[in-house]
Amino acid sequence: MGMPEQGWPIPRELIDLLSALRGSVLLLGHVQPDGDLLGSQIGLGLALRNAGAQVTLAGPQAVPDLFRFLPGAELVEQWEAAPGPFDLVILGDCPDPSRTHGLLAGARGVATRIVNIDHHPDNKRYGDVNWIEGESSATGEMVYDLIQALGLKVTPEIATNLFTAIHTDTGSFRYSNTTPRALRIAGDLVAQGAHPELVAGALYEGRKPDDLWRLGSLLGQVEVSPDGLVAWLALPHGSVPEAFVEAEDLVTYPRSIASVKVAVLLREAAAGRVKVSLRAKGEVNVGKIAAAFGGGGHANAAGCTIAGSLEEARAALLRSVSEALGKR
Amino acid sequence: MGMPEQGWPIPRELIDLLSALRGSVLLLGHVQPDGDLLGSQIGLGLALRNAGAQVTLAGPQAVPDLFRFLPGAELVEQWEAAPGPFDLVILGDCPDPSRTHGLLAGARGVATRIVNIDHHPDNKRYGDVNWIEGESSATGEMVYDLIQALGLKVTPEIATNLFTAIHTDTGSFRYSNTTPRALRIAGDLVAQGAHPELVAGALYEGRKPDDLWRLGSLLGQVEVSPDGLVAWLALPHGSVPEAFVEAEDLVTYPRSIASVKVAVLLREAAAGRVKVSLRAKGEVNVGKIAAAFGGGGHANAAGCTIAGSLEEARAALLRSVSEALGKR
Repeated sequence: MGMPEQGWPIPRELIDLLSALRGSVLLLGHVQPDGDLLGSQIGLGLALRNAGAQVTLAGPQAVPDLFRFLPGAELVEQWEAAPGPFDLVILGDCPDPSRTHGLLAGARGVATRIVNIDHHPDNKRYGDVNWIEGESSATGEMVYDLIQALGLKVTPEIATNLFTAIHTDTGSFRYSNTTPRALRIAGDLVAQGAHPELVAGALYEGRKPDDLWRLGSLLGQVEVSPDGLVAWLALPHGSVPEAFVEAEDLVTYPRSIASVKVAVLLREAAAGRVKVSLRAKGEVNVGKIAAAFGGGGHANAAGCTIAGSLEEARAALLRSVSEALGKR
Repeated sequence: MGMPEQGWPIPRELIDLLSALRGSVLLLGHVQPDGDLLGSQIGLGLALRNAGAQVTLAGPQAVPDLFRFLPGAELVEQWEAAPGPFDLVILGDCPDPSRTHGLLAGARGVATRIVNIDHHPDNKRYGDVNWIEGESSATGEMVYDLIQALGLKVTPEIATNLFTAIHTDTGSFRYSNTTPRALRIAGDLVAQGAHPELVAGALYEGRKPDDLWRLGSLLGQVEVSPDGLVAWLALPHGSVPEAFVEAEDLVTYPRSIASVKVAVLLREAAAGRVKVSLRAKGEVNVGKIAAAFGGGGHANAAGCTIAGSLEEARAALLRSVSEALGKR
């Protein structure tokens, strides 16, 4: 394991850049922001703001309802276009700048410096400073190290954001990226004011009775391949509310079947476009499968968008999964 | 918080007793063993056995299928009666010796010493040595401290047992007992060979497709009080397999509704006997409600058995919950 107990080795250039901040700083998110992106963005944003920096937080989408509990979520602006160049732009948990939907290009002036902090191994290294740690449990873990290295205070608000980042990216400390460091840092963050029960309550106990009954109905629609190795759930366009899909990590249910090696969630986003989430249990690299469809991600968790009907996307994807399983 | 970073203060007598073990040692469980009981029992049992003690592990029930993955689970014997007295009997996570179904009495000779290690504040202190820490996240956390204090090695097998104990009693690090220490010790245990993804896989991904469809159907049967404060699920006798109920923490689903303050699972165990699990979100002490029905537990998680039909038990219990909510 390339996982130092002292913390990840932070590029000297990054420390220098953030130690003497002058001018405007943009912390930029991307489409479909998750807990690690938002927790890292807001956590680092608050720390730099508390240190006196002139900080803006923005992204191409509004903060999903599910993550509005994060202290500072109200600071994240939703932009269709960047209002002009910033002196420094920091992206966290963003492997590909195309996911900013043009905001990075719009925020970039001739003298702008771009900082790219991420734990996705397939990160495109598009920054002037790239700090990529593919073995970190979450970008939030790296941001915790960075805040410490900068000598900044971890307030309870920052702790809650970074705890949420690590909690969500480790699947509530259940995935194989739940390293000793991830757990110990989570412990430090609780000591510094994060409340696990409030984070978990916001993430998992925000259901309405209708949501629970809807989930029950969807579980009845999970399908399993005859050999038991693949399970999937296919949602036609408009069949379930968007906020419900954001709140429920639906792919965990087909994944929870013991025989299943690859779990798939297919969501018809609009006519002719199907969003796909893939989860694997170690034997197949779903990051490669997603990449073949123009997507990306980790070996055990990946996603892509497929053009076609729900049925066409399902057939194409399951064919690809089946081939990958055959090559084991 | 009465939670020392150095570890809980272990009674000197306990250290002395376990440092120089001679004779027969019984680690005794109780009915309806959970992850903390079994993880503590097996974890400590393995550590003492590795130190050369003559160790027996037993309980009144077989290890549930759900926990058969614990390394050493095969050592736990199921007894109807104790085969005779032991020199030392250690009970962990057992607040009330009546839950051993007579095994403690049967294992007790004139010279037997009883050790009682527990984190339930309502523990009846029935031991010759009682070590009770009501603020410890799990008995497994105390056992970790004890093993360290005894200078014994934490093998990967022991780490897996103690990690499971803490994982299950903190609800996958989601409950309010998820302290900095619980997380840091979990990190230490991963460093010593526990694999969070294997533990979580065994606990949450052992479903058959039928289990998933059955769960879906049950979610449709969750009922909610008109004021939204109470939600419950009532299972008639024989309506779902026993192993399914053991594997699924069904009460978490009614609990997951945002408006709900008290969640209830009622299971008709046999004609005229209904087992009840109660969960609260801080505003009502369900331990007191359960105690009024002859049960017990924590403020946020408790259980009892009610005589009567499923409908009678439901009515009596919801009346009691409603009264407690009215007194807030």
